[in-house]
Amino acid sequence: MSNTEFQFEKLAVVGVGLIGGSIAAAVRSRRLARTVIGCGRNRDRLLAAQTRGLLTAVATTPEEIADADLIIVCTPVDRLAVDLCTLLEQTSASTLMTDVGSVKGSIVQHVRTNSSHTSRFIPAHPIAGSHLQGFEHADPNLCQNRLCILSPLAENSPADIQTVRTFWQSIGMRVAELPVEEHDRILALTSHLPHLAASITAAMVHESWLQYAATGYRDTTRVAAGDPELWTAIFTENTDQLAAATDQFIDILTSFRDSLKAGQKAEIQALLQLGQERRSHFRDPDLQPEK
Amino acid sequence: MSNTEFQFEKLAVVGVGLIGGSIAAAVRSRRLARTVIGCGRNRDRLLAAQTRGLLTAVATTPEEIADADLIIVCTPVDRLAVDLCTLLEQTSASTLMTDVGSVKGSIVQHVRTNSSHTSRFIPAHPIAGSHLQGFEHADPNLCQNRLCILSPLAENSPADIQTVRTFWQSIGMRVAELPVEEHDRILALTSHLPHLAASITAAMVHESWLQYAATGYRDTTRVAAGDPELWTAIFTENTDQLAAATDQFIDILTSFRDSLKAGQKAEIQALLQLGQERRSHFRDPDLQPEK
Repeated sequence: MSNTEFQFEKLAVVGVGLIGGSIAAAVRSRRLARTVIGCGRNRDRLLAAQTRGLLTAVATTPEEIADADLIIVCTPVDRLAVDLCTLLEQTSASTLMTDVGSVKGSIVQHVRTNSSHTSRFIPAHPIAGSHLQGFEHADPNLCQNRLCILSPLAENSPADIQTVRTFWQSIGMRVAELPVEEHDRILALTSHLPHLAASITAAMVHESWLQYAATGYRDTTRVAAGDPELWTAIFTENTDQLAAATDQFIDILTSFRDSLKAGQKAEIQALLQLGQERRSHFRDPDLQPEK
Repeated sequence: MSNTEFQFEKLAVVGVGLIGGSIAAAVRSRRLARTVIGCGRNRDRLLAAQTRGLLTAVATTPEEIADADLIIVCTPVDRLAVDLCTLLEQTSASTLMTDVGSVKGSIVQHVRTNSSHTSRFIPAHPIAGSHLQGFEHADPNLCQNRLCILSPLAENSPADIQTVRTFWQSIGMRVAELPVEEHDRILALTSHLPHLAASITAAMVHESWLQYAATGYRDTTRVAAGDPELWTAIFTENTDQLAAATDQFIDILTSFRDSLKAGQKAEIQALLQLGQERRSHFRDPDLQPEK
């Protein structure tokens, strides 16, 4: 066993919930690291995750993972920046860090303002999840075949970027790169605005009317089942881009309403055709060929 | 065979597409009518549907189905009212008629204005469909266990309403009643607005960004794949109710945007919580217990 070649000697996951637990499970099942340390506030929860086989050790302070080779920070998106700063301060000069935040700009800005060690932080956004919460639902295949967006910083070294890229690929992800700003602008439209539209559509149907709702309502509102606290954090971390996307949505709705009232069928059909056309080019990640 | 007791001697389906063909198929497979006549403009298409076993006879003029016991009018929603008027004029005093229109108010208003035989028309909206088109995709179980909303008119007799209700139940549907106005107000929110939100959400993502879209985008925009011409007709037939729903959506988006820019997390979370709460009470029609 001690002769086995591991990609990392010591890997730590900070925040062992659904995504952190699933990443730890993937690392364990693929034998990517000799030691997989789960780090968090609640020792009992961490020990329970260890009992499930997700971790080889637990830690409740940054000092205990100070010599890790790689730390994956999986705390909630509105705590990530502060946690990253603490960890960058208290870990060794060779410890690399990556994260799972759905928003990148606000995190990078905070870390750059508050830490002088940003070169060791390679921002990432593995696009994988579930409406379930907690390491009890951790799944070593949650990230399998999904996209991970890497948003390297100017101060990251090519070698470190490659190390982190290889890590995400090793747990089965496809990796693409996007600059921080572009990540937030695109995700506002591909993820945050769809969630907002789903939530409002769901909120507008009185409970007594749900008996008349069918599969259109079902699919359009599915993601509205997601955790409101988590999504409030995502929305507020991406305020500027989401506000711009919301304004654009309002503009389109307003001219739709005007066309509707004016009986301008061609304008309405053009909008629906554009939606149909765009949708037809979407490739379902569940149907992507295996790597 | 001739001794078999049928619910109807002669039943006609006008407009043999996906929904009309599926209804015909259900009638045939459940042996609900001795004769099932498909009526439409294109004789070759009708003969092809007959060859598939969906019909026992074909007709291309209203006169040929003048003595039917029941006619199900399945033409596009923006042609339904005109077709109903023609059929009401040219059929016998004992011929009942029902339809499949996704909108009821504009149809009923047109028929009442243009025909003196509205007592024989019992409006219905079977909520079943698919993004597929044409009788080639007809499925005798398309309506199975789905909801059919009946919107009887004051001039319909209780016996006729019961006959039509029994018909929809006989092809496997659950039947609920809603007054015409209420049908259109509720469906604007449970069906038409979700479709609009899905289409706009889909239209806003540039093709080159679709590679970053995942399951949230996939489900929220699924119905945007629907036929733009069909949905333009549905939207414009339900102008008043859909315009009101759109205004409400704009109001909610506008105050969301203001809350977002002001950093008012509690307001944002309350909206997401309401969406989550409403969604949690929705029962998937695919998971309804069998009748």
